[in-house]
Amino acid sequence: MKLWQDKLRKIDPYVPGEQSDAPGLVKLNANENPYPPSPRVQAVLRETNAASLRFYPDANGTDLRAALARHFGLRPEQVFLGNGSDDVLALCFQAFFASGQPILFPDITYSFYPVWCDLLRVPFECVPVRDDFRIDPRAFDRPNGGVVFPNPNAPTSLGEGLDFIEDILRHNQDCIVIVDEAYIDFGGVSCLPLLEKYENLVVVQTMSKSRSLAGLRIGYALCSPTLAATLEAVKNSYNSYTLDTLALACGTASVEDDGYFRETCARIVATRDKTAEQLRAMGFTVLPSQTNFLFATHRTRSAKEVFEALKAKNIFVRYFSKPRIDNYLRITIGTPKEMEKLLSAMKAIL
Amino acid sequence: MKLWQDKLRKIDPYVPGEQSDAPGLVKLNANENPYPPSPRVQAVLRETNAASLRFYPDANGTDLRAALARHFGLRPEQVFLGNGSDDVLALCFQAFFASGQPILFPDITYSFYPVWCDLLRVPFECVPVRDDFRIDPRAFDRPNGGVVFPNPNAPTSLGEGLDFIEDILRHNQDCIVIVDEAYIDFGGVSCLPLLEKYENLVVVQTMSKSRSLAGLRIGYALCSPTLAATLEAVKNSYNSYTLDTLALACGTASVEDDGYFRETCARIVATRDKTAEQLRAMGFTVLPSQTNFLFATHRTRSAKEVFEALKAKNIFVRYFSKPRIDNYLRITIGTPKEMEKLLSAMKAIL
Repeated sequence: MKLWQDKLRKIDPYVPGEQSDAPGLVKLNANENPYPPSPRVQAVLRETNAASLRFYPDANGTDLRAALARHFGLRPEQVFLGNGSDDVLALCFQAFFASGQPILFPDITYSFYPVWCDLLRVPFECVPVRDDFRIDPRAFDRPNGGVVFPNPNAPTSLGEGLDFIEDILRHNQDCIVIVDEAYIDFGGVSCLPLLEKYENLVVVQTMSKSRSLAGLRIGYALCSPTLAATLEAVKNSYNSYTLDTLALACGTASVEDDGYFRETCARIVATRDKTAEQLRAMGFTVLPSQTNFLFATHRTRSAKEVFEALKAKNIFVRYFSKPRIDNYLRITIGTPKEMEKLLSAMKAIL
Repeated sequence: MKLWQDKLRKIDPYVPGEQSDAPGLVKLNANENPYPPSPRVQAVLRETNAASLRFYPDANGTDLRAALARHFGLRPEQVFLGNGSDDVLALCFQAFFASGQPILFPDITYSFYPVWCDLLRVPFECVPVRDDFRIDPRAFDRPNGGVVFPNPNAPTSLGEGLDFIEDILRHNQDCIVIVDEAYIDFGGVSCLPLLEKYENLVVVQTMSKSRSLAGLRIGYALCSPTLAATLEAVKNSYNSYTLDTLALACGTASVEDDGYFRETCARIVATRDKTAEQLRAMGFTVLPSQTNFLFATHRTRSAKEVFEALKAKNIFVRYFSKPRIDNYLRITIGTPKEMEKLLSAMKAIL
């Protein structure tokens, strides 16, 4: 043991989800969008003069923030940009959960929350979801350093309405409440209208899912100007230029193409509902999804067994060996053709 | 005052350096490269199918790490990638400066070091550079939680040799020593050969300056596999996908075009040396630069006055109103034509 080793941060290596690019692979394990991004994104790539890359990006992301503000009917100073919603959430944890009191989030939720807490030394407590996997709004009714949960929740796919969110906000006025809307565009109800009334609300969204831009790492927070300024101060103390020039330009082009966005989301929702129905016919219990994935368990066959059997057929879905959900599969919605492949493989396995 | 405001992180907003894109502007204030990136970068943009952006990027940056490892004669497991060298350095501070003892860096140096210390709660002490602005290696000979300094140093432009770096390493075996080589490719001597001998050395470089890719945010650390693995664990606990698909592809293309890289660096060095000579003839003291900028002070005219006068002529250089250096200008090396504009404006002002 060398003495310098003593000065290293002790941390459990967090391993990102399994990726693979084997030929012929049906990749339904990362909640990626099966459709390409808006054709305007391709146009940006074609038309960008690489010489512009010698300059630093616009640290303020002026154009993208303006486009998002227009899209949502907000002011640009209510929009904060980050390098994917993971970056935005990590900065939120640093900016808003600084009281030393434990923050609260559901026990079954996005697996990164406890990881950020450990890294950033934010104490936390998990509040159990109910037996039907619904979040219990009353579970947050206690002193806390902040609240964060996804709506719709992952990996359960369950979404809640505006009343539910407002109920939590009404009972949590003394802390920041973060609603992580990564999957909101697939039929969920966004709580953005509550921003007018609740200055302590932060809504986080991403372009990785509904806008097919996982490869470009664009996330954003929508909140009161006070909170956006706090995020900006923390960000500028960490890395002033988190979004690169190409991501900013492609993101802006995507936001400005609302028609394409709505159409592809609607196609995914239609494929999802059809797939859910067919899985139910095969003996699966499928939670009512408001996301681009399904959360399903089979009456007789174990999830792990089905997961492995699908993998052997080159179909990758997601399996979590975690308490309460270790008999469920998370299945990303692909193209209708990919879902046919999944369903016929499933039929063969069962 | 609302109660939730008490839970926000109290932080001084760090303001990034002044940017401007007025037409006709001669922009010599951000140490950007005056030449476009390798033509292969333009080819990547032209040839990328935007459909590939629907997938998450390769979290391990396999191709870019392999290209950098080949370029430097290292193993891929010695290469760590980040979203610009600011991201890499911020992760280094979290990963390596965890002892609670104060870390050491020069009083005149990259202005982000104390900002990261404040944000990440790393105690620090500044060691004064000598009157000639050279770093005193003996100043680091005391118990510390780590050492970080740029070589060449910024904004002084002064570079040191291998013996100097090894001297510091020899006296600092019980902590991590980070050498920030952001400007190394403009005539400095990289300390990479010392990696074989010193497992506690971390060398950080960037593609923003010498590779004309400031707009794409690509930085990297080169170090022992142990230290790279620690960085990877911290990064994966913060944001698994810091580099986007386009940045990874463009960065790889740049590294593989060594001829273009060497040629543009050589042109900047030639322009720099000629400009320094001409400024000296005008009464400036110009430090011997090993970077893509000059650090200069005039015998009779105040730096602030010259800075303002240049600005009025639409020529932006950098001025720091900081103790010890508040009579100096930092002037980025542009094209020969831009430097002619600077010199003739300077002549008119003096």
